[in-house]
Amino acid sequence: MTVSEVGEFGLIARVTAGLERTPAVLIGPGDDAAVVRAEDGRVVVSTDMLVENRHFRRDWSAADDVGHKAVARAFSDIVAMGATPTALVAALGVPGSLELSWTDGLMAGLREECSHVDAALVGGDVTAAEQITLALTALGDLGGRPPVTLAGARPGDVVAVCGRLGWAAAGFAVLSRGFRSPVQVVSAHRRPEPPYFEGPHAAQLGATAMTDVSDGLVADLGHVAAASGVRLELRGELLDVPAKLREVGAALNVDPLVWVLTGGDDYALVATFPKGADLPDPWRVIGAATDAEPGVRVDGRRWPHGGHEHFR
Amino acid sequence: MTVSEVGEFGLIARVTAGLERTPAVLIGPGDDAAVVRAEDGRVVVSTDMLVENRHFRRDWSAADDVGHKAVARAFSDIVAMGATPTALVAALGVPGSLELSWTDGLMAGLREECSHVDAALVGGDVTAAEQITLALTALGDLGGRPPVTLAGARPGDVVAVCGRLGWAAAGFAVLSRGFRSPVQVVSAHRRPEPPYFEGPHAAQLGATAMTDVSDGLVADLGHVAAASGVRLELRGELLDVPAKLREVGAALNVDPLVWVLTGGDDYALVATFPKGADLPDPWRVIGAATDAEPGVRVDGRRWPHGGHEHFR
Repeated sequence: MTVSEVGEFGLIARVTAGLERTPAVLIGPGDDAAVVRAEDGRVVVSTDMLVENRHFRRDWSAADDVGHKAVARAFSDIVAMGATPTALVAALGVPGSLELSWTDGLMAGLREECSHVDAALVGGDVTAAEQITLALTALGDLGGRPPVTLAGARPGDVVAVCGRLGWAAAGFAVLSRGFRSPVQVVSAHRRPEPPYFEGPHAAQLGATAMTDVSDGLVADLGHVAAASGVRLELRGELLDVPAKLREVGAALNVDPLVWVLTGGDDYALVATFPKGADLPDPWRVIGAATDAEPGVRVDGRRWPHGGHEHFR
Repeated sequence: MTVSEVGEFGLIARVTAGLERTPAVLIGPGDDAAVVRAEDGRVVVSTDMLVENRHFRRDWSAADDVGHKAVARAFSDIVAMGATPTALVAALGVPGSLELSWTDGLMAGLREECSHVDAALVGGDVTAAEQITLALTALGDLGGRPPVTLAGARPGDVVAVCGRLGWAAAGFAVLSRGFRSPVQVVSAHRRPEPPYFEGPHAAQLGATAMTDVSDGLVADLGHVAAASGVRLELRGELLDVPAKLREVGAALNVDPLVWVLTGGDDYALVATFPKGADLPDPWRVIGAATDAEPGVRVDGRRWPHGGHEHFR
C-alpha cells in the first residue's frame, strides 16, 4: 500500500501511532502546536534537513536506519551544547508512490532513537514531495548550566574526544565500492551511536568549548578554532586508529587516518577542557589549544580540509 | 550567480547576513544549536514543510512573498495556541542551479515577517535538493497562560473568528485562471496577514478552544468539534462575504461563500468563547457550540469537506 492510497490523514494517523509521551510533553501531536517543558527557562534548538540520495540511499540503508540516523544527527547538535534532548518535531515530504512500509520503518527508527535518550516526538507535518525529505528540529534543556559554545576554548586547554571517529566514513567507503561488509563499519554508517550522555557530562566536567563531529574532526575543530581564536594542535600518536579501520583501509587501499580526521557521520563529541582537567573514560585527550594563529594542525601541519560541502 | 557557484558556506553566509537579534535570543545562528529564552518554563513548538509547486509557484509569487507566507504559516500555529512567537529555525533545500537572488529574496521575506512579530530567526540548515523545500519550526511563549487547545470548546460557547476568510482562495482562483488581478485577492494569496496579536489576546479574553484556518474554516472547525466533542453551528448570515469576493466570484462564476468556508491560506483565527463573552473587534461571532453529535453545520446543514488534502 502506498502513501497516496491512504492519503494525508491516513499517513498522519500512521506516523503518529505508537508515539510515547515523556514527562516533558505537556501537549503532544494533534493540536496546532506542541507544548514542551523548558524548566531551565531557556530552550536549545537545532534543525537539520535530510534528502534522499544526498544524505541517505534506500538501497544502502533500511527505513528504520534512516530514522535512527536522522535523530542521531538532530540530537548530536543538542548534546554538543551540553544540553539534554527533550523533544523533536519532524516535517516529512514523500512521493505519493512511496510504500507505507517505508514510512512505518522510518517512524519506528525515529521513535526508537528518541526513546534511547528519553525524548519525545511531539509534532510534525507531512506533505507530498518528489524526493523523500525529512526535516527534524530538536529541542533540549540545559539544566541550569551555561551552554558550551564553539567560542570558549582558551590557550592551554586540552582537546579531547569521545565516541567513534572514521567508522561511518569507512562504512561509506565500503558501500561506495559495492561491498556490504565488514558489518561493523557498514552498521556504523547506517546507524551511528553518538555518545549522547557525554554532552551534558562534558559540561559538568567543565568543557570550555564543544562540537559534534558531523563534517569531520578537522573541519569541525576548525569552527572551534575560528570561534575561539585559538590554534588546536592535534597529536597523531593520540589519534587511535582502530584495528578494524586499518584492516578496511588495507583492503580498500585507503589510509584510515583520513577517515579518522575527515569522517563525519559518527557524531562523536570533541571538546576543550582546562589544562589538568581530570577526564574520565570515554574522553581521550588528542591535543591542546595554543595562542598561535587560529586553525587546526595535526603534528604541526595543516590537514587538507575534508569537510563535506553540499552543492559542489 | 547561482547557489552552486558560492557553495554551501557561501550560501550560509548570505542567508545568515542581516539577521536581527531580539532579547529572547541568547545564542543565535553559527553554533551547534541556538539558545532561546523560554521564561514561561514551557515552549510551544510547531513545524511545517513547504515544497515548490505544491505550496507555492515561483511564477505566481516572488521569493520574498514565499518567505513572508512561510513565516505566517509557521507562526499562525503558535498564536493559535494563545502563545507569542519567539523564534524560528529554517531548513532549506535548494537545487544548485537556483539563482542567489531567489534565496536572498526568500530570506528578506523571512526576516521581515519575523520582525513584524518581534521574533528572531535563530538557526537553520541548508542542503542541496531537487525541489525548493523549506521546513520552518516556530517557537512561542505562553506568558504564564494555559495553552488554548482544540479540545476546550463546551456546549453553549460562541464561535468567533478574526482575520480574513476566503481572500487567499479567491486569489488562488484568479491566478489559476491566468489572471493577475484584482490585486487585493492576489496579494492575499501571495502574502497573508494573519492576526498574530489576536492569538494571545483571545487567550486573555478567555477563549476555550482555538485554531488557525489553514485548511478551510469548516475543515479546521471540524478538528475543534472532534477534539472538544461538540457540534459547531455556524450561521450563514453572520458569515460576512466581502463585496470584493462577491465581485471576483461573479467574474469567475464561483459562489464566494465557498471560498469563505473552505479557503485556508489567510490564516485567520477561529475560537470558541464562553457564552456572553464580551468580544471586542476584530472578533466576529459566527455561531455557537451545542451538545448535538460532534461536527460542523452551516445553517443546520453539513458542508462538503473542503480542506486541502495532499497526495490526492
